[in-house]
Amino acid sequence: MNPYERRTEAVQAALADSDVEALICVPGRSLQYLTGFADEQRERHLFLTVPADGDATFFAPELYESQLRSTTWVRKLRTWGDAGDPVAGLAGLFDDIGISAAPRLLVDDRMWATFTQDLRSVRPEAEFGLAGDVLADLRIRKDEAELEALRAAARAADSAMERVRALGSDAVGMTEAELAARIESFLADAGGDGVSFETIVGSGPHGAMPHHTHGERRIEAGDPVVLDFGTRVDGYASDQTRTVVFDGDPGAQFREVHAVVNEAQATAVDTVEPGVTASAIDEAARSVIENAGYGDAFVHRTGHGVGLDVHEDPYIVGDNDRELQPGMVFSVEPGIYLDGAFGVRIEDLVVVTEGGSERLNQTPRGWEPNPTGE
Amino acid sequence: MNPYERRTEAVQAALADSDVEALICVPGRSLQYLTGFADEQRERHLFLTVPADGDATFFAPELYESQLRSTTWVRKLRTWGDAGDPVAGLAGLFDDIGISAAPRLLVDDRMWATFTQDLRSVRPEAEFGLAGDVLADLRIRKDEAELEALRAAARAADSAMERVRALGSDAVGMTEAELAARIESFLADAGGDGVSFETIVGSGPHGAMPHHTHGERRIEAGDPVVLDFGTRVDGYASDQTRTVVFDGDPGAQFREVHAVVNEAQATAVDTVEPGVTASAIDEAARSVIENAGYGDAFVHRTGHGVGLDVHEDPYIVGDNDRELQPGMVFSVEPGIYLDGAFGVRIEDLVVVTEGGSERLNQTPRGWEPNPTGE
Repeated sequence: MNPYERRTEAVQAALADSDVEALICVPGRSLQYLTGFADEQRERHLFLTVPADGDATFFAPELYESQLRSTTWVRKLRTWGDAGDPVAGLAGLFDDIGISAAPRLLVDDRMWATFTQDLRSVRPEAEFGLAGDVLADLRIRKDEAELEALRAAARAADSAMERVRALGSDAVGMTEAELAARIESFLADAGGDGVSFETIVGSGPHGAMPHHTHGERRIEAGDPVVLDFGTRVDGYASDQTRTVVFDGDPGAQFREVHAVVNEAQATAVDTVEPGVTASAIDEAARSVIENAGYGDAFVHRTGHGVGLDVHEDPYIVGDNDRELQPGMVFSVEPGIYLDGAFGVRIEDLVVVTEGGSERLNQTPRGWEPNPTGE
Repeated sequence: MNPYERRTEAVQAALADSDVEALICVPGRSLQYLTGFADEQRERHLFLTVPADGDATFFAPELYESQLRSTTWVRKLRTWGDAGDPVAGLAGLFDDIGISAAPRLLVDDRMWATFTQDLRSVRPEAEFGLAGDVLADLRIRKDEAELEALRAAARAADSAMERVRALGSDAVGMTEAELAARIESFLADAGGDGVSFETIVGSGPHGAMPHHTHGERRIEAGDPVVLDFGTRVDGYASDQTRTVVFDGDPGAQFREVHAVVNEAQATAVDTVEPGVTASAIDEAARSVIENAGYGDAFVHRTGHGVGLDVHEDPYIVGDNDRELQPGMVFSVEPGIYLDGAFGVRIEDLVVVTEGGSERLNQTPRGWEPNPTGE
């Protein structure tokens, strides 16, 4: 039995346990996890229905039939044509596979409202829940093949980070967008498949906006620059951040803040081991920053799980009591953001191991163009 | 009043007309249309609530506050922190802005199920519909700011097309993928932001497959090459096609077919004016091609609307009775595809004006390396 089929059987067991009739996925990461089919949600109805009891069945546009048959293990497939009515087709499928009049159904967490509205019209008495309630517990612990892909993606990102740093004073005068384009070509050179999220180059005051991506501002000597980027290998994402200075003197406050963030990150990573809660990791990073007097400037959670999704469970946040288990993979990324001045964030991916943790990213975490040691 | 605020007021008038209490958008094209904020849906709750009566209000993670305040016109904003409960925050917002216990609400067509489930938990008695029911009718007619962006995107594409043609015999021997990469760098040089869809370079027999993008085939002397590409300016897309011959003699049948497609395209564009139906534009192009004996080789619709989405209303297709109105923008792109031999497609974007139409693309439509006239 292939790994996709094994995962689907685990889903079916979980559905039966919780008295759910079926789980319904749309193209996206959950569908990829269950079938290997990698695509995004589009206008046309394409669902995988996994009943608690019976065969997983695709409901898909005709023009996808040969692709789904040749690239997935799923043998049951019902198609609809562009001239047909997909909602009527879906009603027929539900009748055929024995979905009751008032079932409990779990839908893909990312299913568009246009599709959930159609499901509700087909089964107006259904009670709906989220597929993540079942899938998250399966996806949160990575197997060895998944870890290999995550390590390869992290190595590609590390390689790109080293080449960016090596630009040194050549990066001064480049726009953030130009530097982002260079980073993306470095990622591709290193064997990465595209970017796992929009590349962030936050120079000077832009670094103080945690979700700034990149713009037309030119990098100046002395600017702290937040570099946060990632790529994919076999669908699995990388995500790392360094805050660097390409040339010139960033000033005393920056040096202090960078040291605080670096200590917060190291302290949090050292705290990772099986049985510790996610909230304890958040607290470990946060307390270092609070003790240094910058608590109000650490405006986001400490981290998030990474796998097929670049943001997934476990979330490393103050109210998450989940205990860490071997195979979980997440980011540790504390930051300090000083409005109008600069930002500092340092991020690595970490795997929980039997004995503690393994960092997936190995590049130096210092801000200098040629940092030494860790 | 800025255009975003004006569009939001138009939405509010439509909500009041249809007895809906509020429309709720997530990051995506609809939110960009109403606020200019361009991002994609992510796992954190970020909604724009537009009540029929009252002020549009963001509900957003704290870390988005400065960005939303500095880049959008929306002045009311309620934030929630990573340590807080977004569902409780949303319930508070709904109470404060006076959403009733059993409202009619329209949600973004692409809102994820995880968010619609939360909205349902906050207002279990609500009746939900889709925001597209109101937004589609507004977005189909472009205002002056939108037309300016569409014109700029079309100019960038025109500029790239001129540079591609200028390659002349230098393009012979390049692979389709290499030429696509050149096109994409020309688009960026011309001020375009990325590509609005995957660049199509269909050389020789590949041109006969309308959905071929680009591959490793090398361009030969005498090959007709279908070039279909676009970029974005301020979020708005361009989309144009020329079928060119870089060097050598493409033969008599190609010259005939190119002339037929060019006449079909010109006839269809000449037919565009307010009050004419979308189907009449399709019919104008199709009848020229049918009369020339190539009806079976025109295998797709004549065009599609273009705006923030590269495929949107109005669709220029045989069964669309919608009457054209000033401000609508769509492609006119008839084609003839001769299996195993070559394809010809010619495409411009056209705006419906009070007096008829305006072509957004101005590059010559001939196939010669140095075409004269139009």
